[in-house]
Amino acid sequence: MRIVVDAMGGDYAPEVVIQGVRDYLSDGSADILLVGQEDKVKPLLEKYPLPPDRVQFRHASQVIEMDEHPAEAVKAKEDSSMVVGMNLLKSGEADAFMSAGNSGGVLAAALFRLGRIPGIKRPALSTVYPTATGFTFILDIGANTDCKPLYLQQFGLMGSIYAERVLGVPNPRVGIVSNGEEPGKGSMLVQEAFELLKNSNLNFIGNVEGKDIPAGMADVVVTDGFTGNVIIKLSEGAAGLMLGIIGEEIRRRKVAALGALLAKPAFRAVKHRLDYAEYGGAPLLGVDGVVIIAHGRSNAKAIRNAIRVAERAVNGRIVEQIKQGVAERLGIGEE
Amino acid sequence: MRIVVDAMGGDYAPEVVIQGVRDYLSDGSADILLVGQEDKVKPLLEKYPLPPDRVQFRHASQVIEMDEHPAEAVKAKEDSSMVVGMNLLKSGEADAFMSAGNSGGVLAAALFRLGRIPGIKRPALSTVYPTATGFTFILDIGANTDCKPLYLQQFGLMGSIYAERVLGVPNPRVGIVSNGEEPGKGSMLVQEAFELLKNSNLNFIGNVEGKDIPAGMADVVVTDGFTGNVIIKLSEGAAGLMLGIIGEEIRRRKVAALGALLAKPAFRAVKHRLDYAEYGGAPLLGVDGVVIIAHGRSNAKAIRNAIRVAERAVNGRIVEQIKQGVAERLGIGEE
Repeated sequence: MRIVVDAMGGDYAPEVVIQGVRDYLSDGSADILLVGQEDKVKPLLEKYPLPPDRVQFRHASQVIEMDEHPAEAVKAKEDSSMVVGMNLLKSGEADAFMSAGNSGGVLAAALFRLGRIPGIKRPALSTVYPTATGFTFILDIGANTDCKPLYLQQFGLMGSIYAERVLGVPNPRVGIVSNGEEPGKGSMLVQEAFELLKNSNLNFIGNVEGKDIPAGMADVVVTDGFTGNVIIKLSEGAAGLMLGIIGEEIRRRKVAALGALLAKPAFRAVKHRLDYAEYGGAPLLGVDGVVIIAHGRSNAKAIRNAIRVAERAVNGRIVEQIKQGVAERLGIGEE
Repeated sequence: MRIVVDAMGGDYAPEVVIQGVRDYLSDGSADILLVGQEDKVKPLLEKYPLPPDRVQFRHASQVIEMDEHPAEAVKAKEDSSMVVGMNLLKSGEADAFMSAGNSGGVLAAALFRLGRIPGIKRPALSTVYPTATGFTFILDIGANTDCKPLYLQQFGLMGSIYAERVLGVPNPRVGIVSNGEEPGKGSMLVQEAFELLKNSNLNFIGNVEGKDIPAGMADVVVTDGFTGNVIIKLSEGAAGLMLGIIGEEIRRRKVAALGALLAKPAFRAVKHRLDYAEYGGAPLLGVDGVVIIAHGRSNAKAIRNAIRVAERAVNGRIVEQIKQGVAERLGIGEE
């Protein structure tokens, strides 16, 4: 197996990417095809020597930056690490593609180069979300701002297959985000998608409310890209607010500050449990190839874990499973 | 000034409601008109003696329960505390109505009895949301699941007036929830509402993302009732998750547990800052009368604060201000 790694993707690229690849190679089994700017990457390959039999390097002269307009950048920069990397996946020279770069850019490059899986209307961005009981898999978190019911049904299918095959969740519980528990609650979109999901061959548990997501009520949480984006960013913000307020109140009090010092290992464990880097990347589902997107702020650990995720997705034959699932598990499934 | 208090509303009614009224009367200036079931309320009025010159009681034989279908319950229970109380506001016997009961029921009763403010298309449920810098006022949090752009523009107007007149925020910054900062980001609904808000006579700061809400970037956060409901419930859930994980990790470690004991006053302060009871109730804006809804889990402090909010809303002439604002501040404002 060979995994393309976008050496230029992410806020701390290329150095943490090379470090992440090095860490991955210590126990991962796939070979790595690094793509990026030679003058930036080559010196790092001297600094962090990687086993030459397992790592290849491919020069790409351009970089798609985090703040560029995704579709325009992908069209304009044919020799970017992202586009070159995606071409390597398309041509069969690699089995998966991983990037911590501009996620809209990855989406655009994947759509232009790989295309959609036949039958899938829209690909979805996803993430693994820490909960009280472990984690839940949420999609779409931003690829599709305005959705149709069928898209949400297909997100449910793809999420369920991914959770089962890659995250190791048997018979995943699939829920749809709504503003009430009872069937019949929700926007027009959610009500129609609810019916489609109910009639799918999935373990559909119905509506999940905002509070049910961190509680871990569902293994797969389906939503439109607008709501999903708000959920992810609000969760980051709310967790940051809590930690900020706790820190502020502790610093105000001398005895409390001593207490906090003693409690530090517990706080470190909390941070660990909420750390996205533990989960690595999440897939772009619905495109015709294994594409894993890591957090833009990925450190070396997150990169290593994202490559592991790519390896598991290839082993889980996630694309073939979705192809099969579209036909078998969604009923009629046409608009 | 006289405020109707629904004695039967809330999970711990009627006892905490009576306690809240007692606490309010110690420094509040409005008189109270309590509405509820005589056999439940009268014994409590003996247990908690209230000044007879400032408190009146009106019997209402029925109660709208928390889990009843709002509109059906309001139609079926004409002699419920909620409907009787709303009639007292409508007839001019009182200046405001406050309930910690079924918020959908309050909405339905207000719509049936008071009607909408002329020009306002839809009333909105709201809440005061604690942030890193204080609080923000969010609407709609659930009255309108599917919205039109004009509704959101009007929510912005009503929220801005409320923040200024009742919460004491000068020239409130109004933002709209979106899945990206830049203008042009967002669903079709958000993009159209953005233009309407931009052309209103409001201090419109544009899109706010999920993370910007707890950060306190806007004083008034406008969204549709579906997204608003998810935001509120997710925030509660995420805060609960954080505290739960912190507690769990601390209990696992003896030294950390000692530390947590020392840090307890800081944690208590955190809870205090995030406590909805501090903010009391939030208004149902857009109906033709001052209607304040308190949290269903309200304790006596929350009830007292909600009655204070009602008093401030009457003093701020919030309904008249909205009537005036619709004409003056929304531009053309027609669908």
